[in-house]
Amino acid sequence: MNNTVYLDNSSTTAVCERSIEYISHTLSENYGNPSSLHIMGLNAETELIKARSAVAGLLSCREDEIIFTGSGTEANNTAIFGAAKARRKRGNKIVTTAIEHPSVLEAVKLLEDEGFDVIRLSPNQDGIISEQDIFKAIDEKTILVSIMLVNNETGAIQPVSAARTAIERKQAPALLHCDAVQGFGKMKISPASLGVDLLSASAHKIHGPKGIGILYKKKGIHLPPLLVGGGQESGMRSGTESVPLIAGLRGAIESLPKTHEKIKELRDYAADLFGGQSFAAINSPEGALPYIINISIPGYRSETLLHFLEAQGIYVSSGSACAKGQGSYVLRAMGLSSERVDSALRISFSRFNEKSDIERLFDSLKKAKDTLRSSK
Amino acid sequence: MNNTVYLDNSSTTAVCERSIEYISHTLSENYGNPSSLHIMGLNAETELIKARSAVAGLLSCREDEIIFTGSGTEANNTAIFGAAKARRKRGNKIVTTAIEHPSVLEAVKLLEDEGFDVIRLSPNQDGIISEQDIFKAIDEKTILVSIMLVNNETGAIQPVSAARTAIERKQAPALLHCDAVQGFGKMKISPASLGVDLLSASAHKIHGPKGIGILYKKKGIHLPPLLVGGGQESGMRSGTESVPLIAGLRGAIESLPKTHEKIKELRDYAADLFGGQSFAAINSPEGALPYIINISIPGYRSETLLHFLEAQGIYVSSGSACAKGQGSYVLRAMGLSSERVDSALRISFSRFNEKSDIERLFDSLKKAKDTLRSSK
Repeated sequence: MNNTVYLDNSSTTAVCERSIEYISHTLSENYGNPSSLHIMGLNAETELIKARSAVAGLLSCREDEIIFTGSGTEANNTAIFGAAKARRKRGNKIVTTAIEHPSVLEAVKLLEDEGFDVIRLSPNQDGIISEQDIFKAIDEKTILVSIMLVNNETGAIQPVSAARTAIERKQAPALLHCDAVQGFGKMKISPASLGVDLLSASAHKIHGPKGIGILYKKKGIHLPPLLVGGGQESGMRSGTESVPLIAGLRGAIESLPKTHEKIKELRDYAADLFGGQSFAAINSPEGALPYIINISIPGYRSETLLHFLEAQGIYVSSGSACAKGQGSYVLRAMGLSSERVDSALRISFSRFNEKSDIERLFDSLKKAKDTLRSSK
Repeated sequence: MNNTVYLDNSSTTAVCERSIEYISHTLSENYGNPSSLHIMGLNAETELIKARSAVAGLLSCREDEIIFTGSGTEANNTAIFGAAKARRKRGNKIVTTAIEHPSVLEAVKLLEDEGFDVIRLSPNQDGIISEQDIFKAIDEKTILVSIMLVNNETGAIQPVSAARTAIERKQAPALLHCDAVQGFGKMKISPASLGVDLLSASAHKIHGPKGIGILYKKKGIHLPPLLVGGGQESGMRSGTESVPLIAGLRGAIESLPKTHEKIKELRDYAADLFGGQSFAAINSPEGALPYIINISIPGYRSETLLHFLEAQGIYVSSGSACAKGQGSYVLRAMGLSSERVDSALRISFSRFNEKSDIERLFDSLKKAKDTLRSSK
C-alpha cells in the first residue's frame, strides 16, 4: 500500500501501532471476563479502569462519567432515546440540527413519529448553526437538545455551549447532548466547558479500532440504558465489555499528538492549492476543524471523481461514509447550489498524511478535469 | 500461566490463534470502512461477507439472515424489544422462562413494566422446562416466546421447538426467539429445525473476541432495529461494523472442532469423579450439554470455594459471570435447597482442557473440604 494516499480519515482511520499492540496483548494474555469474581476477571477489569482513566483524562471529566459502548452510533442512540424517556413527563420538544449524523437524525425521527415536536435548525451558508437560532428554538417545553460539535462533512464547529446558556435562561427541562465523534481527540474538548450533559465519541476516528464508542454522562444525570441485562458499565450498558477494543482505545488515546499543528498545516496547504483555482470551490468555512476540508469541482459528479482518484490510489469520500452515495443533506442545508452539492468531495486528514499526499490529490484532480467529461 | 486451570469457559474463553491472527491482520491491513464507496471500503466489506458466510454455514441458514451485533446481550435485546414493537398490536402476552440470561429477563421485565403480560415458566428439578408447560402457556394473545437453548449455569437443554408446535396449534401471533449463546458452536444448531424466528449467539464463548454478537432473523420477519443511523446490516443494526472482531469471529468458527467428543469425555470424567463422592452433588441433568457441569459442595459457600481454588490457579465460577456474586436464581428455580444453591460451582470446559485439569480441580476441592471451615 506504499502508493496509497488515504484522505478519508473522517470515515475511519488506520489503527495505530500502540492500539494494535494493546489489542493483541489483551486478546492473548488477558482474556478474562471483567464480571468474573476471580483474578482473571480482575485483570480484565483493570484494563477497563486504565482505559476509562485515559478517556476521562482526555475529556477532563470523572472516570465514573464514562460509559463504553459498541460504537458512536450506540452512544448517540443511548443518549437520545434515554433522554427522551427520562424527561418525557416534563415536556414534548426536541431541538436539534439538520446537519447531524444519521444516528442522531434517525433516532430523533423515531421520537417524532412517537409524538415529540422536533425543531431541526438549519445552518448558515458556512455550515454553522447560529447561536440566535439555538436560543430562539429552546423553550420551557424542551426536554432534549442535541447539537454536534464538528460537522462530519465540512468540519464546521458548532456553538454547542450556546445551547447551555439558552437552557438556563429559558429554564428548559432539557438535557444537552453533543455528538463529538468528529472532534474527539482532534481538539480540546471538555464536557464541562461545553456545558453538556451527554457527549458521544468513537475510537475508530482516532486510529483506534472499529467497534468501540464512548458515552460521557454527567454525574447525577439519570438516563435509562438502551441495552439491559448483566448490568455492566454501572448498569448503563449491559453486555460483556470488549476488553481488547477498550484497551485499543486507550492505545489510540495515548498515541494522540500533543498538538494539531501538522494537520493545520496540511489543511492550509490544501486550502491554498485549491483556493487559488477557478475549477474548485471550498465548502468548509474558515475556522473549521482542520481535519476536514470539503471542496467541490463543479461540473463533475462526486462519485465519478472519487472513482477516478481511487484508480490512482487516492481515497477520499463524497459526503460521509454513513450516507453511502447519496447527495449530501449537509451541503444542501447550507443552501449550496445543486452543482456544488453534486460535485463535493470530503478530504480528511490524519497525522499520517504528508503535503505530498495533497499534491498528488491536486494533480490528480487537475488531470480528472482534463480527462473526464464534464456533466455540465 | 502454565499453572492455570481455566474451567470457566461459559463465562468467556481464551481467544484461539486463528481468531487473533484474523483480527491482527484486519487491524493492520484492512482498516477501511465497509460503507466507503472506494476499494478500501469494499475490501472491508469482503471481510463481513466471508464472516457472514461462515456463520450461515454453521447455522445452516441464509447469509442475509445474519446480523452482526456488539454482543449476545445486544442480540437478545434487539430480538425482544423488536418483537414486542413489531407485534404489539396483535396481542399482549409474552412467554419466557425463569432461567433465562439477564439480558432476556431484564428486557422482558421492562416490557412488563410497559404493560405486557409475562409468563415465566419454571423448570423441573433437572433444570428443564416442560413441553406441556410451554404448550399451556402459549395462546392466541402471545406475541413473543423467548426460550434459551442451553442454560448457562447447568447446561440443561431446553425443548425450544415445542414452542413452535404450540405457536402453530394455538395460532398465536408470536415470534419465537431463542438465546443460543451457550449452545452456539458447541452443538448442531439450525434455526430451521428449532423452528425459531430469531436466535442469538456470541463469539467470545467459542474462542472468539469479546464485543461481537450475532442475531439470526428469519427471512421475511419484520423487526424494527434497536440501533438506528447509517443503516448498516441491512438497516437492522446501525453503526460502523467492527470489521476486526467480525473477522475474529470467523477465525473462531473455522477453528471449531468437528466433534465434541473430547468435551463429552471430560464431562463424563468429571461426573464420575464427583458423582461417586458423598461431599458433592451434581446439579446438571443427564443429557445436558457436556460443556457445563454444575456441582455443589454442601456446607461450603460458593465464593469461599471459588477463592480457595483461585489461590491454586484454578478458575471456575459461582453461577454465571453476568450475575456477579448473587445466589443462583436458576438453581433456586429448580427447587434445590438453599444449601445446594449456596454451595454451587459452575465448571465449564473448552477443547483446551485436559483430564488432568479435572483431577487438579477434584484434588483441590477435597483439600478445600479438609481446610475450610464448613458453613454448616
